[in-house]
Amino acid sequence: MRSLLLTVILLPLSTQAQIPTSVRADSLAIRSIHTTTLVQGDCYDWLRDLCALGPRLSGSVGSEKAVAYTKSIMDTLGLDRVWLQPVMVPHWVRGDQEQAHIIGRRPLLNESLTLCALGGSVSTGDDGISAQVVEVHSYDELRKMKPKDVEGKIVFFNVPMNQAHLRTFHAYGETARYRVFGADSASKKGAVAMVLRSLSTSLDDYPHTGVMVYRDTTVPHIPGAALSTVAAERLSAALREDPKLKLHIRMTCETLPDVVSYNVIGEIRGTEKPDEIIVVGGHLDAWDNGAGAHDDGAGCMQSIQVLQTFLDMGYAPKRTVRAVMYMNEENGARGGREYARVADSLDENHIFAIESDAGGFTPRGFGIDSVLLVRINANWGSLLGSFGLHELTEGGHGVDIGPLKEHGCLLAGLNPDSQRYFDYHHAPSDTFDKVNHRELKLGAAAMASLVYLVAEYGVK
Amino acid sequence: MRSLLLTVILLPLSTQAQIPTSVRADSLAIRSIHTTTLVQGDCYDWLRDLCALGPRLSGSVGSEKAVAYTKSIMDTLGLDRVWLQPVMVPHWVRGDQEQAHIIGRRPLLNESLTLCALGGSVSTGDDGISAQVVEVHSYDELRKMKPKDVEGKIVFFNVPMNQAHLRTFHAYGETARYRVFGADSASKKGAVAMVLRSLSTSLDDYPHTGVMVYRDTTVPHIPGAALSTVAAERLSAALREDPKLKLHIRMTCETLPDVVSYNVIGEIRGTEKPDEIIVVGGHLDAWDNGAGAHDDGAGCMQSIQVLQTFLDMGYAPKRTVRAVMYMNEENGARGGREYARVADSLDENHIFAIESDAGGFTPRGFGIDSVLLVRINANWGSLLGSFGLHELTEGGHGVDIGPLKEHGCLLAGLNPDSQRYFDYHHAPSDTFDKVNHRELKLGAAAMASLVYLVAEYGVK
Repeated sequence: MRSLLLTVILLPLSTQAQIPTSVRADSLAIRSIHTTTLVQGDCYDWLRDLCALGPRLSGSVGSEKAVAYTKSIMDTLGLDRVWLQPVMVPHWVRGDQEQAHIIGRRPLLNESLTLCALGGSVSTGDDGISAQVVEVHSYDELRKMKPKDVEGKIVFFNVPMNQAHLRTFHAYGETARYRVFGADSASKKGAVAMVLRSLSTSLDDYPHTGVMVYRDTTVPHIPGAALSTVAAERLSAALREDPKLKLHIRMTCETLPDVVSYNVIGEIRGTEKPDEIIVVGGHLDAWDNGAGAHDDGAGCMQSIQVLQTFLDMGYAPKRTVRAVMYMNEENGARGGREYARVADSLDENHIFAIESDAGGFTPRGFGIDSVLLVRINANWGSLLGSFGLHELTEGGHGVDIGPLKEHGCLLAGLNPDSQRYFDYHHAPSDTFDKVNHRELKLGAAAMASLVYLVAEYGVK
Repeated sequence: MRSLLLTVILLPLSTQAQIPTSVRADSLAIRSIHTTTLVQGDCYDWLRDLCALGPRLSGSVGSEKAVAYTKSIMDTLGLDRVWLQPVMVPHWVRGDQEQAHIIGRRPLLNESLTLCALGGSVSTGDDGISAQVVEVHSYDELRKMKPKDVEGKIVFFNVPMNQAHLRTFHAYGETARYRVFGADSASKKGAVAMVLRSLSTSLDDYPHTGVMVYRDTTVPHIPGAALSTVAAERLSAALREDPKLKLHIRMTCETLPDVVSYNVIGEIRGTEKPDEIIVVGGHLDAWDNGAGAHDDGAGCMQSIQVLQTFLDMGYAPKRTVRAVMYMNEENGARGGREYARVADSLDENHIFAIESDAGGFTPRGFGIDSVLLVRINANWGSLLGSFGLHELTEGGHGVDIGPLKEHGCLLAGLNPDSQRYFDYHHAPSDTFDKVNHRELKLGAAAMASLVYLVAEYGVK
């Protein structure tokens, strides 16, 4: 129990006595957005249902179900328009075999390790690969090695995320390049496969997948996989005891031909400037090894929540507001590019886009393009702060809305609290039970608040 | 995955170019506090062990184990002094029977409901109590009822926590009085027992206990119990269908004689003003129906973490810093009172006390006594903000340190993000797995930062 002498936090109404009427009205509107979302919002229940449909990587059966389900939610809301936008997407499948085990000189060392293929990896072939292991802790270390010490071996990038950062995205930014480009670098030195320590802030036995890319056309494509952080610790310990041990890995993943899928879109038409379009979005695809609850089922359901909240509170936005559930963010970003291409071909005027793709956690603020940031900060910085949105910073948005930028659209990203995100990110542990109903709804309310301000006042 | 175009959040070092040397030194110290805690801190592992010792309500075997374990942690840290402070505590026990079921006119309505006794409740007697149920939604509603409509019945307070509040403690503040005083009010109208909807922000089948008080000496003491929120919904639905149904409840709880227990205390002696004492604390007791991970194992382990962090970073505080693990916050607050009494009898000069008793979640700021708040805000508000501690507000502290106030000690409380707290509070679901390692450590680092500032500069 906590003392009932509670902290008094001033709410907007009591602090706005000498502030212009419009700000007072905005304060009331943003309060209403929060109340409506917290009390009546359905995004948490929608997310439960979405996560129950099964994995939804681009091209999968689950992704088709997710498209249909998401459209069906918006169909029932009473929006002005709901539609599917076709887009060709890559179709990578994990296959039914993923195994790793240590073959050491002492039987005691021979244990299975939890691993998963990285998205886009080639297969090991049916027989798998058995080879000695070279453990490295940076690209620098690999670069300095002699080819003969790497040739024919498996390179093991054992690079923990740096826990010292306050924001875990900074640690992810430093470490993700090993996952994305590690296989190429290892192949260049003659390695036959690459395994890495999962990009995770947690020490557990879940392997974290994620996209890898073959961009070097001069070297063979070798398999890339992630060990759970616990498996990485075990392999490292085994290597200290027996540097010549072999690792056997077997993965039957493959890339199939592209297939058609869809962005799912719904909109409320603006009452005064319908041709100025605001996008609020997330991505509907998710890695195939989990439920994609935080990444990014949360962002999708929050985006639809913005529309539901506006309808429920009786707010008719002056500008058009669209919720866009993008397909294929994880391994191709095709949905985002196709959306921008179509928008350009129709000569649509997108003035602002915001994406939620950092988990359904308590919102702390936004990353915002600098021109708009200055204005938001000056006019509404303290108002947003009174709703817990203190961190208004420059830049930082989701992958999907990026392509709109070249058409002059200003961008923003929701920045939720980042502490738990990389415990679950791209892992089997990213399940619905990891999402808190109030945190999810507050994220939606935060986005709705910013969308409201842009819908009312535009970006100029 | 998220864009690697990450939000740039300016860290203290880069913003302090034209700021006095002392602030730059403080910024470096607070950065070091955070890094040391996040990378080397042991509080998460300590909490795992503490939660494994079993329930630790005052007077229980688990509470004795917790005292011994907490002392053993501090004994190994190399503190200047570690000791136990005896305190007599109440000894309420739940007993081995807790049951509730509906007896309706149709067999279909006859279902078991999940309930638990409130702490301090009298027993129902071995036979239990079977009576009709009066559902009310406020004290007002009960007050307006005629005694004959309540006499011989069970009063059922079905008062949900108001989800519209941004901070869940506000909703708790509104609703807790039904748990604390509801039995007395029901008894005054002639009821034979009181059950209430658990004080919880979640809809699930965990009952949430908590203290209740018999303060009206003119009315019989009747049993008080909490239904899970799901059970409350079911009972309410059943009452709509069959208003004359009976509820049978049976609870064999009882209050035994007081026993001796201990506050556990460890300190680092100040280098310059050792007689000025700073307390950082939490409470070691926890409700008996769960592991007390967030309430308040987290606050205890964070308090010891503050000392470990100072030692690990080589910081020798100018003033004495004490970690105090108080006993009996939940049902008597005897530990807090005894600590203040002894401090007074020894003529100790306590200048500042801070408590963590709102869960091990990401810290958002502090509630601080107003004199100190003004100074902290003016000198270090922006520095603390750069570590995510934006919400510096007046008042708000834990129950245990309250008694120090009358001896002139300034008080503060850590304010973590409150969204998840009341999902778990006083319930079987308040278990170790609900605590995130980084969030817990950041809370400790936040307290250490404020303690550092007071240890360096005092409170005048």
